[in-house]
Amino acid sequence: MTPQRGNDGSIDTRLQGDFPVVSAESAADLVSDDATVLVSGFGSVGYPKEVPLSLANSNRDLELTIVSGGSVGGEIDEQLVEANAITRRYPYQALKTAREAINDRRIAFSDRKVASLGDEVQYGGLVDPDVAIIEAVAVGKDWLIPSTSIGQTPAFVNAAPKLLVEVNSAQPLALQSLHDNYLPGKPPNRDPIPLTEPDGRIGSSRVEFDPSKLVGVIETDRSDTTYSFRDSTEDDQAIAVNLRKFLTEEMNRTPVFDDALHLQFGVGSLGNALMGELAEFDPDGRDVIYFGEVIQDGLLEMLDAGHIESASATALALSEEGQAKLFENIDRYGEDIVLRPTNISNNPALIDRFGVIGVNSALEIDLYGNVNSTHIRGTHVLNGIGGSNDFNGNSLVSICALPSTLKGGDISRIVPLTPHVDHTEHDIDVFVTEQGIADVRGCSPLERARMIVDNCTHPKYRQDLREYLDRVEEQDGHIPQDPELARELFD
Amino acid sequence: MTPQRGNDGSIDTRLQGDFPVVSAESAADLVSDDATVLVSGFGSVGYPKEVPLSLANSNRDLELTIVSGGSVGGEIDEQLVEANAITRRYPYQALKTAREAINDRRIAFSDRKVASLGDEVQYGGLVDPDVAIIEAVAVGKDWLIPSTSIGQTPAFVNAAPKLLVEVNSAQPLALQSLHDNYLPGKPPNRDPIPLTEPDGRIGSSRVEFDPSKLVGVIETDRSDTTYSFRDSTEDDQAIAVNLRKFLTEEMNRTPVFDDALHLQFGVGSLGNALMGELAEFDPDGRDVIYFGEVIQDGLLEMLDAGHIESASATALALSEEGQAKLFENIDRYGEDIVLRPTNISNNPALIDRFGVIGVNSALEIDLYGNVNSTHIRGTHVLNGIGGSNDFNGNSLVSICALPSTLKGGDISRIVPLTPHVDHTEHDIDVFVTEQGIADVRGCSPLERARMIVDNCTHPKYRQDLREYLDRVEEQDGHIPQDPELARELFD
Repeated sequence: MTPQRGNDGSIDTRLQGDFPVVSAESAADLVSDDATVLVSGFGSVGYPKEVPLSLANSNRDLELTIVSGGSVGGEIDEQLVEANAITRRYPYQALKTAREAINDRRIAFSDRKVASLGDEVQYGGLVDPDVAIIEAVAVGKDWLIPSTSIGQTPAFVNAAPKLLVEVNSAQPLALQSLHDNYLPGKPPNRDPIPLTEPDGRIGSSRVEFDPSKLVGVIETDRSDTTYSFRDSTEDDQAIAVNLRKFLTEEMNRTPVFDDALHLQFGVGSLGNALMGELAEFDPDGRDVIYFGEVIQDGLLEMLDAGHIESASATALALSEEGQAKLFENIDRYGEDIVLRPTNISNNPALIDRFGVIGVNSALEIDLYGNVNSTHIRGTHVLNGIGGSNDFNGNSLVSICALPSTLKGGDISRIVPLTPHVDHTEHDIDVFVTEQGIADVRGCSPLERARMIVDNCTHPKYRQDLREYLDRVEEQDGHIPQDPELARELFD
Repeated sequence: MTPQRGNDGSIDTRLQGDFPVVSAESAADLVSDDATVLVSGFGSVGYPKEVPLSLANSNRDLELTIVSGGSVGGEIDEQLVEANAITRRYPYQALKTAREAINDRRIAFSDRKVASLGDEVQYGGLVDPDVAIIEAVAVGKDWLIPSTSIGQTPAFVNAAPKLLVEVNSAQPLALQSLHDNYLPGKPPNRDPIPLTEPDGRIGSSRVEFDPSKLVGVIETDRSDTTYSFRDSTEDDQAIAVNLRKFLTEEMNRTPVFDDALHLQFGVGSLGNALMGELAEFDPDGRDVIYFGEVIQDGLLEMLDAGHIESASATALALSEEGQAKLFENIDRYGEDIVLRPTNISNNPALIDRFGVIGVNSALEIDLYGNVNSTHIRGTHVLNGIGGSNDFNGNSLVSICALPSTLKGGDISRIVPLTPHVDHTEHDIDVFVTEQGIADVRGCSPLERARMIVDNCTHPKYRQDLREYLDRVEEQDGHIPQDPELARELFD
């Protein structure tokens, strides 16, 4: 199925209007010391670079609140953090410097679901924004064209009273052909989102704004801090084999999947590896369409090889090589890739309507099917919930895929009780590890636990987990549990 | 705003067609010993009575799987349970007999979110249904009209290969004027739900089906096992005062609420009491419209008094007196009340589009804002998650309202760490107890914890909770926690 085309990529000049083109330093002066700053960016790309760097290099005593769509690069989550300029950060981060500052509680962090963040900022009382700083490939007096990610740019531009735009000549103008900007209406009586196919288009390459908001345009040619994916491991490949086995059975289970499979994979190296391994999956004539939040290298390869028809996402979360490949062949990819705002790419209603099969990972799971995807030992945040709950909570079939162990097998990722819960026992249908598949649909909590132990745990930990279950089964209760015994066997 | 009218209440005969009218015993014979049975019912009303009773009174060795929309009455969750006829039960129950059997693990229970249950049954692989047994006020050869609840009736009738209909003459035919049946299309490319106002109508009073499915119609005049609400307590009233205070501030915070407030209240005595207390709330000229899952007595009173314009729900979860009042004045209530299938009343997309302010209760919460709404001590299920996550996860503002203590103050409902999580730290915006309000939007975990302790806890427990926080703050980590200390101070 070829995506319905709405954009013709007709903008050929980066600066088109009578607005102040300013230096990054002058732009930084427009940001007050304790400003709440909304920044573009998702999947570590498409974020503003020059103004954050100028702020980091100023000698000002800054106490900024930084709200992004998703993860951003080093200019924000390293250099601004090192300058002690950030006191508050939403909703997600993925760099060590920001992470350490959050775990040391030098930065107050609130880990938010990314789909609803645009509404939280515009209508939900999360913040009172002062300025939006947006990276664009081109800007006019009342419009801009985003770069390698869209994230919450339309919502942020709508919510902020002032707007700074960084026009980045390192990002191809032709990215416009990928974009489908659409901002849902204002509650409480907004219209349904009119997207009827996962790869359809309902909007424009441009994000429009009130021209009086635009206080400065900054020119730059700094590249994104791109992702680096680790190589696929043996565990990744074994998980992929099990996932393909499940998908093959599932597509024959219900007529819902007779014509097409709409898949999503979570962000990160495992998701990237699983996407790449789809080359071996035979959809038996069905269209496979990706409806997720990021385009990673593995997905680009699947598009190249024709294993996937088309892809919808909010960011091009590619490695440096992946980004170079995309930039070189952007006209071709523009036929098959559409980028959307995160409140569309991750929209609960659309995930539901498109009958998405969502595949997301986790740090650890417990025997009853509760998932910790954010906090190591329950205390130290890794990145954040991101879009995982948007998909886990609303997919027709939600799959949690993870290796059964970490640290070379020294720690089981499957534990009796997880100390932090991001996705509850109500959210996940199927668990997949390198050991096997636990399809827990319709299972009681203890049935789930037995199936997860039998099918998904590493043999090294299976006996201890069985002993735990045997002993808690001596108690009554729908979900018997014994935190002390859990600690005794697993700490 | 008067609801757009789609139904004219034109059916005046209960049995209209050439189908087999059979005894309950004959109908029960059509249900195999290990059948998967989909039953109508939600809010303990509108469920089939005669066939379950016949099954309970048979001397057969039954191993039934019973799937309802929500809670049902004693004929199913008492008498069938006592007959050891149920081996598996989804997605919710609210009667002591079923609850005990589940906590003794004589029944395998899976606690599911109610909005998505219809899809799970039709498309998601939850069960392979054998028969649907539906209570109706009237039936034709290819249609039926539900009674006091709709629940998942349209989805169940669609999914089941065989259909038994109990036509109940104790339920007024005029109930048809309340109903708006609409079944969302089949994924993976279904259309948006066309409802654009919370009290609008998009469907029909009838649920249609393939006439070959209808294997028997049973006549009955047995009444529903109705709710009994406890009287409003001092705590309820103090919570209501705080809730009104919050709503008054909130409606002035954002233009989203300039014209109308769309409210939802959870099922149960507290929700009922809070609805009733809305009489004292001054919406300052705004329309107040209820978009929730049940109509309880308190809401009927608010409609009577004109404090609420109109109400959308899936069940009339009234007391015996409330039901009698509704039945006597059904033409009047038909102007203001619309009943929908649960996959519409609780639909994530609609909750989002209507900017709902959701108010749901909990068994307990922890200091970081995780909510346990289902499992006492983490082990013993009370009722189930029901619609609470549908609303908590998708409302524009989600409020968790609960008394700060239980057992006359002997136990704090606010604890350092909750042993079961139904709604995560990502879901709730505001906590309200009889002590006060904690609006935790934008707070870091420790800020949330301090605010909940200061504003919401009972003074009797405040010092211990502060001590817990003081001591975990000595550790690093985004969410410092110490399960042993928590047990030491609170067990």
